[in-house]
Amino acid sequence: MKKATHAQTRQHNLRLILRLIYEYTPISRAEIARRSKLTPPTVSDLVEELIADGLVSEQGFGPSRGGKRPTLLAFNDTASVMIGLDLSDELFRGALIDLRGRILKQIVLPLEGRIGGAAVELVKMLVRRLVSLSNRPLVGIGVASQGVVDYHQGYVIQAVRLNWRHVPLKQILEDDFGLPVVVANDSDAAALAEFAFCQKSQVRSLVLIKVGDGVSAGILLDGKLQFGDSYGAGEIGHVVVEPEGELCRCGHRGCLETVATRRVLLQQARQIFNQRPDSLIVQRAASADQLTLEDVRFAFQQRDPYITSILERIGGYLGHELAALVCLLNVHHIYIAGHLAAFGDGFVRIIRSKLNEHCLETLANQTLVEICSRPEEITLLGGAAFLLREKLGLV
Amino acid sequence: MKKATHAQTRQHNLRLILRLIYEYTPISRAEIARRSKLTPPTVSDLVEELIADGLVSEQGFGPSRGGKRPTLLAFNDTASVMIGLDLSDELFRGALIDLRGRILKQIVLPLEGRIGGAAVELVKMLVRRLVSLSNRPLVGIGVASQGVVDYHQGYVIQAVRLNWRHVPLKQILEDDFGLPVVVANDSDAAALAEFAFCQKSQVRSLVLIKVGDGVSAGILLDGKLQFGDSYGAGEIGHVVVEPEGELCRCGHRGCLETVATRRVLLQQARQIFNQRPDSLIVQRAASADQLTLEDVRFAFQQRDPYITSILERIGGYLGHELAALVCLLNVHHIYIAGHLAAFGDGFVRIIRSKLNEHCLETLANQTLVEICSRPEEITLLGGAAFLLREKLGLV
Repeated sequence: MKKATHAQTRQHNLRLILRLIYEYTPISRAEIARRSKLTPPTVSDLVEELIADGLVSEQGFGPSRGGKRPTLLAFNDTASVMIGLDLSDELFRGALIDLRGRILKQIVLPLEGRIGGAAVELVKMLVRRLVSLSNRPLVGIGVASQGVVDYHQGYVIQAVRLNWRHVPLKQILEDDFGLPVVVANDSDAAALAEFAFCQKSQVRSLVLIKVGDGVSAGILLDGKLQFGDSYGAGEIGHVVVEPEGELCRCGHRGCLETVATRRVLLQQARQIFNQRPDSLIVQRAASADQLTLEDVRFAFQQRDPYITSILERIGGYLGHELAALVCLLNVHHIYIAGHLAAFGDGFVRIIRSKLNEHCLETLANQTLVEICSRPEEITLLGGAAFLLREKLGLV
Repeated sequence: MKKATHAQTRQHNLRLILRLIYEYTPISRAEIARRSKLTPPTVSDLVEELIADGLVSEQGFGPSRGGKRPTLLAFNDTASVMIGLDLSDELFRGALIDLRGRILKQIVLPLEGRIGGAAVELVKMLVRRLVSLSNRPLVGIGVASQGVVDYHQGYVIQAVRLNWRHVPLKQILEDDFGLPVVVANDSDAAALAEFAFCQKSQVRSLVLIKVGDGVSAGILLDGKLQFGDSYGAGEIGHVVVEPEGELCRCGHRGCLETVATRRVLLQQARQIFNQRPDSLIVQRAASADQLTLEDVRFAFQQRDPYITSILERIGGYLGHELAALVCLLNVHHIYIAGHLAAFGDGFVRIIRSKLNEHCLETLANQTLVEICSRPEEITLLGGAAFLLREKLGLV
């Protein structure tokens, strides 16, 4: 609890007005005053500052309410652009993104086995290319990284697959590019992107579950991301679900990540390929090794019974974890992201069914589970969402 | 996001100063100014208001720092008292509690099978007796109730054992007693009490698990209680842990509440009584039916192997749920409350051991699990903690 000063009040009110213009664009000064309960002179004063910053411009006139027609104010979606990076995968992605979360340009650079410093260099190359592609002012760089991330300091505490330990990514990129940088965990970023860019209604709390090469959650409660006491919140991939199961890279046996990832799915699909000549996937690939996620998805959509049973097993484990999550947090909105989001509503129905079986009925019934809005881009957008929140107060 | 007004700023600063005096009592005006960064005239002005309210008084002098010795300000712990109610059990408890969470007087009224309106009448009787016992101004009535509670409206949405549905407890008590009333769920209340009255350090997030006739959690993240989207957060007693298990009152089979409550413990201890004449509990009671929780606790402390194995099973289920919770929320402080808290550190060790096995090692190692500070009183104090937070801004 800190003292409230007049400067803080001004800053607070400035952000309040910018948010109203962002949300209700185009909008008149009088309407802003009505909605914000600020006085018309205060509104005019603060609007001037936003116009001078280029974030807002006057745009036409609204209908008259008796007197002169009011000038309307519009938010400039492309006043500046944001760089968003998705480092969650073996393909590093980067994009120029406008202030509404529209992707203007995207670049993909394959990691090709790089780890440690070489992976950091790839991040720099990605940013360098994006900076050279941009012809507008840049808000900054928003990074969504795999691993455990100290969001407040902007460094990656640990990312096992990249062999990163205590990599000060924020510092490194700020030094190189002279732009503001935020660094967040990929699931947290994706959750914030769903919240910022993809929602239709007034959802204030949501959980996004990424099911890809790992399983993790981004948790947003009453608009606030939950990082945990040591940035470990959302590490649900390491709850043991099969005590006698496969050895996990964390040292335990039978973690959720050993039974419900893309790797597990492909591995089990390859077994089907070799053992079940009547499975649809056999027609899709020349050999088990060449089998892709897209082949498996095709077979699932065509209701291949062998592939369906694999997804029922994976979805069952996820559904049980969601039951524990829903009983604990009573969050009404759950989104599935990551590679397995490609399995769509059929996969959600499987998850949902186990959730219903293993969770208090009234809570389960109130809960909506769905595939996240833009599965391919959601993590990329997440970096930008953090920038929008931190630098402009718009999320 | 709302506009910040000068009246809000004043109210904010008033609460800030009251909190400083509450925390650092006795403290000088100059020290308050230093810590709050408010100007000395502002501090003096606001302190006058707190003295007029009776919450603060001048009390002696501090050491001189060159000039005149400064007058010290003290928080008046007994300026007023709070009524706290614990309706979580078959014994309704009520107490007069001072502003530091000290219990001044306590009354216990047995429910004796009352449900519905009769149970509400018992609550009124409890309050009536407490009001008549008090000789100081009353801050209000803080109720910690079993069941699902709409904290913001102050009514009990549903409490199965009391047969309460949509009971507007806040309205009922305000109408009868003309005092401010807050109504919260019992686990939430206990969690806030642990936060408010029992902590030694700067813990901002904690989870309190009540294991008694049910199993539920109170979740406090960064100082904020998590109620969930429909006041169902913390209902972990209804996660299914044994899909083929005993039928639960919720309609599912094998919920955590069917394997880890006081009832289950006593039931299994009675079986031991009848089947194992060499068990220590056989010496403690005349018959299986007369066996009490205290008898079982005695046998557990004396390491009776049969009783130990029952608690290992119960603690194992709880430990697994805690593993899921820790992986999800990464909260460093977990407290065990409710009747089974009586089993103390030995029981915590069992829970802890399963937590370690089923959770990411680094997260488990950072997590402290312990019995809550005042297990007998913690829920009672919870109602008072809510009053302290809502009416005085002190928690």
